[in-house]
Amino acid sequence: MPLLAIDLGGTKLAFAVFSQKGDLLCEEKINLDKRKGAEVGRLISETVAANLATQKDKGEEIEAIGISVPGIYHKNEGTVWAPNIEGWENYHLLKEIGSVAGNIPVIIDSDRTCYILGEWWMGVAQNCSDAIFLAVGTGIGAGILTGGKILRGANDIAGAIGWMALERPFQHHYKDTGCFESRASGEGIPKMARKILSEKKEYDGLMKTKSLNTLTALDVFEAYEKEDAIAKEVLRHCIELWGMAVANLISLFNPEKIIFGGGVFGPAVKFIPDIKREALKWAQPVSMQHVAIETSALGTRAGLYGAACMARKNFKT
Amino acid sequence: MPLLAIDLGGTKLAFAVFSQKGDLLCEEKINLDKRKGAEVGRLISETVAANLATQKDKGEEIEAIGISVPGIYHKNEGTVWAPNIEGWENYHLLKEIGSVAGNIPVIIDSDRTCYILGEWWMGVAQNCSDAIFLAVGTGIGAGILTGGKILRGANDIAGAIGWMALERPFQHHYKDTGCFESRASGEGIPKMARKILSEKKEYDGLMKTKSLNTLTALDVFEAYEKEDAIAKEVLRHCIELWGMAVANLISLFNPEKIIFGGGVFGPAVKFIPDIKREALKWAQPVSMQHVAIETSALGTRAGLYGAACMARKNFKT
Repeated sequence: MPLLAIDLGGTKLAFAVFSQKGDLLCEEKINLDKRKGAEVGRLISETVAANLATQKDKGEEIEAIGISVPGIYHKNEGTVWAPNIEGWENYHLLKEIGSVAGNIPVIIDSDRTCYILGEWWMGVAQNCSDAIFLAVGTGIGAGILTGGKILRGANDIAGAIGWMALERPFQHHYKDTGCFESRASGEGIPKMARKILSEKKEYDGLMKTKSLNTLTALDVFEAYEKEDAIAKEVLRHCIELWGMAVANLISLFNPEKIIFGGGVFGPAVKFIPDIKREALKWAQPVSMQHVAIETSALGTRAGLYGAACMARKNFKT
Repeated sequence: MPLLAIDLGGTKLAFAVFSQKGDLLCEEKINLDKRKGAEVGRLISETVAANLATQKDKGEEIEAIGISVPGIYHKNEGTVWAPNIEGWENYHLLKEIGSVAGNIPVIIDSDRTCYILGEWWMGVAQNCSDAIFLAVGTGIGAGILTGGKILRGANDIAGAIGWMALERPFQHHYKDTGCFESRASGEGIPKMARKILSEKKEYDGLMKTKSLNTLTALDVFEAYEKEDAIAKEVLRHCIELWGMAVANLISLFNPEKIIFGGGVFGPAVKFIPDIKREALKWAQPVSMQHVAIETSALGTRAGLYGAACMARKNFKT
């Protein structure tokens, strides 16, 4: 029986139907269009109901529904904390979707957990018992598989690697999103560039024409391609931090694989050899020899694959 | 039936007999006296044989033998890598002790694994499913319990937190033991002090009288008590690094407890409130609220308790 996978993001909802074997049968995306709170819940409910009906019309029944959420899922309570969706501080998603799904099982988990599960099921982490998905997008998070199990932590908040302390002394602007994320994420990269731009009055390079407020990570990557000095400075700093973070994961977890994904990897994929060289300096040397550092095979679909993976019969995380 | 616990250190061998319930029935220590390679193996064999005989004389039979080793234990191969014991790069300990033990089970694991197991069994981590023992002695390592299981990694090397990258840019002297350990361990503390002492020619404080070569961590702690400026500088730096490392464990693992132990904690126990304050700045804030930061309840016996814990019937790590 097919699996329904739903991947809720901060700005859009993706959903797909998979076969048990992992074939992607159909896929669609809906913009959230500034929906918030219960409106987002209703959109998911409607999506689930519509998909159940469509499958029924085909004479099929959905086996189970897997949902990836952009934040934290509290398994015992069935609630979601999603910082980018207004009113989702403690949203009772399981109960809501459960009432639409009837006796079809609903399994929910955080996006970072879904990313690593997706790669484990159908991507580059197949046959791994110890692998980590390092998602670098607007924020930074890690989905961690150790000894064949998902690392959840005592309150389901494990993997908050955006908070990793990598540069002392503490600076006040680390306070909101953590040291690592404040510098080396999709939001951190233009923030670093803006800071340097505002200090270097004499700068007359490519990014000069950009308004400081609208400068994006992509602008910095594009300027880097054209050998812009500030873009180089910012991204070299990021390479160092990505390398240190990877090294810390290697030393602590001794994983078989670390998989880079998220919007920034993307354009930062070309830096992976540099990141490896940086990690090599810092990491426990035997663990370093045993790890492979790769990019996501599933790209923006990693969350959908992970959601489907969880929905399979007898699957335990 | 009683359990035999053996805790091999870099300079001594401790052993103890425990009841199944965790009562310490007897305990002894033997200096290694510069024994190396097979001599150390023989000492353990003899200790095991003698204890089995003693128990037999009492009409008791040892249920199983647990052994804590100062390094890495490769479970599948039954071999030990112990950097402080000459000739133990790949020592076949399980086979050797197995031949003395006959049909009595022998369970071996790394000291850091034994520390957290000891605290979980009889110390401050009882009833925890997610707890970390941060052992700061000559070196630095972490024993990590996640979701009720010991984190081993793909090659049994997980928990090598001494290699944690905390200060950029990379410095050459991090190469041997890792960034964190090169600064904030029992060897790192006097190394930092020596470096500052050799630079500050005008210094005329307490540590001036110490030969640079023989200066120990304890000397730095003693000088700190007497408000020595260099000792203060070194230990403040350590507090920052300990706080950052604790914060990183909190953000990544979302544990219920982090337990400081090892020779340095010890004298550094009084800094735990300062370390907490430092960690509070860096860590994921929700995980930070949920964690308790404590000191080992078992002190130098944590390894023995952990070795006994592993030896209990039906115990699985």
